[in-house]
Amino acid sequence: MILSGSSPVARRPEIEYAGRAGRLRSRLGDHRVEALAVTGMTNVRWLTGFTGSNASVALLPDRLVLVTDGRYRDRATDELAAAGVEAEIVVGFTHDAQHEAFVGAFAGIAAVGADARSLTHARWQALAVELPIVAADGLIEDERRTKDAGEIARISEACRCADAALAEVAPMLFEGPTEADVRMELEYRMRRHGADGPSYDTIVASGPDHAARPHHEASTRQITEGDTVVIDVGALVEGYHSDMTRSYVVGDPSPEQWDVYQLLLAVQIAGIQAVRSGAAARDVDAVCRSMSVDAGYSDWFLHSTGHGVGLQIHEDPFESPASTADLRAGDVVTVEPGLYRVGFGGLRIEDLVEVTETGCRILTASPKDTPCPPSPPTI
Amino acid sequence: MILSGSSPVARRPEIEYAGRAGRLRSRLGDHRVEALAVTGMTNVRWLTGFTGSNASVALLPDRLVLVTDGRYRDRATDELAAAGVEAEIVVGFTHDAQHEAFVGAFAGIAAVGADARSLTHARWQALAVELPIVAADGLIEDERRTKDAGEIARISEACRCADAALAEVAPMLFEGPTEADVRMELEYRMRRHGADGPSYDTIVASGPDHAARPHHEASTRQITEGDTVVIDVGALVEGYHSDMTRSYVVGDPSPEQWDVYQLLLAVQIAGIQAVRSGAAARDVDAVCRSMSVDAGYSDWFLHSTGHGVGLQIHEDPFESPASTADLRAGDVVTVEPGLYRVGFGGLRIEDLVEVTETGCRILTASPKDTPCPPSPPTI
Repeated sequence: MILSGSSPVARRPEIEYAGRAGRLRSRLGDHRVEALAVTGMTNVRWLTGFTGSNASVALLPDRLVLVTDGRYRDRATDELAAAGVEAEIVVGFTHDAQHEAFVGAFAGIAAVGADARSLTHARWQALAVELPIVAADGLIEDERRTKDAGEIARISEACRCADAALAEVAPMLFEGPTEADVRMELEYRMRRHGADGPSYDTIVASGPDHAARPHHEASTRQITEGDTVVIDVGALVEGYHSDMTRSYVVGDPSPEQWDVYQLLLAVQIAGIQAVRSGAAARDVDAVCRSMSVDAGYSDWFLHSTGHGVGLQIHEDPFESPASTADLRAGDVVTVEPGLYRVGFGGLRIEDLVEVTETGCRILTASPKDTPCPPSPPTI
Repeated sequence: MILSGSSPVARRPEIEYAGRAGRLRSRLGDHRVEALAVTGMTNVRWLTGFTGSNASVALLPDRLVLVTDGRYRDRATDELAAAGVEAEIVVGFTHDAQHEAFVGAFAGIAAVGADARSLTHARWQALAVELPIVAADGLIEDERRTKDAGEIARISEACRCADAALAEVAPMLFEGPTEADVRMELEYRMRRHGADGPSYDTIVASGPDHAARPHHEASTRQITEGDTVVIDVGALVEGYHSDMTRSYVVGDPSPEQWDVYQLLLAVQIAGIQAVRSGAAARDVDAVCRSMSVDAGYSDWFLHSTGHGVGLQIHEDPFESPASTADLRAGDVVTVEPGLYRVGFGGLRIEDLVEVTETGCRILTASPKDTPCPPSPPTI
């Protein structure tokens, strides 16, 4: 039967699409281009509100031209109107017609910026035959970092869906489910709580071997007493992602499990406390990494500490040793140190936070003080 | 509580990975290259069985080298062993280290093939600085077309999961669910029947407006009597996709709804009957298109008739007017004509078939003889 578990949805602030083209135009000079070929669907969506799977946008000095195919004429018209974005919408019924319309939109432009990191080499070459293409990598990705109130509201709502699902499913760890059972229940319940879907393939990694793999996929392994269990779960709401990890020990934790958990919790909180506007992203990683190394767990620290989250689950800025970015107010980033060793298993604690001028605001709310999952309700 | 709805899984034939490198090597001469840079994750998986999110493979005249990052050392070792693939596995802990190891693997090679249609321009250029790169587009995609018994078994299992979920959910159309409710139930139930997840975002499009959009996303619109409802649903099993569409009328169909449905069913069956090894893929499209046009529905026929399905939901060959491919035994393709008009709504019928020497074998089994959903069970 159809279940109606979704909460009533409060009215969310609108996403402010209308100013984005202007902000991009004001930065074109930095890249010495007069216009921009916007080709990745995430960037097209961010700029125009269009959510289909095929479109390219010409960002011109005085207007926008969106080229799509026959499937999407009505949807593009509707979605751009809803977003308050003015653009000429051109429909091409074949790839060639779309290419021709897109190239034609740039007539008279002396330098067109494009993203060499997302365009395929074949398409770059096809454009370069007809247009003065220049690499303008990362321009939109940089603008996308700063989330407005409408975007934060959607990410927060996604966090709420994942929190609610995890609160229902964590007690089930005592019942001997498989990893895949737990994933299935989490993804179903996120939807019942209003999510459009999972933000990524939910990770459920248990026991001495699977939990030691940071990106393990949920399997048919049955979760049993004594296991460490890493659950990495996020929801998708109107294109915006959430990302959270909680780790548990099923049954009474061993002294080593307690010790590693308490260390990791301190490491993760220290990482969160290092987040503020102006801090170097790599310093958030350095705090978590050095605390772990100093405690004797250098071999257990296998991945960097976090990444931006928005229309993509992994986006700028990245908190890793190689990062050159400074955090800025409006960035939404994860703080997710983990400690892993085959034989022990693994633990990871991850929150999603919004960077503010003085620190950060935590968007995920699931309890993390101990490695013990909430008990099943007594009946 | 944890539900245990999965059917016991019969033992499936193994996928034959071991011969694939050799088959590719035998075709390198056609592209005038001595080795291949395999970079897309789908192609890496097809060649080696590795299922992580980051790896590149150097296909060399005498060996394979797989380069990945620190997260995936154990998983790559285990998965390649399970696949029976011999390769040197190199772990680079930074992007630069991975790039260096990958480039180094091709030392002494005079011409390295790469796929300009999937590599980004930025990565192509980075490789071209150090290697004699030549476009060898579509080589692996062409080999991937021909599915072995292990692949067919997984695709068939995915079809079974979608059939089972749809059989449970279709009667719910009478209960006034929203489109999103139907999608949620389908995706949950595919998992309960053993799928690893949905093959793509399940399409549930209802009523005079939504159903007229071939790629509508499920919304909060409530499904009501008189609606046409298009349900496009597939499952994922061990990386392999299924794809199926059924269309319904809720309540008693109007004469026009009956007429369009009966025409479409005849069109779709004619399309299936046009599938056989040696047939031009575009002719399958032509059969469906011309029958629709001849019946006076040219404005209703909005998209081409089908595509290959495997490790990707859309892959070679494509059954469209622009296709130059001939169908071959072992291809797995959809046959999915649709008829749409705003005001009427839309109908699409899609089956997934395996091409054989003399025709095809239909892998999807949900009933399609009438537009009436199965009635809810009487209690």
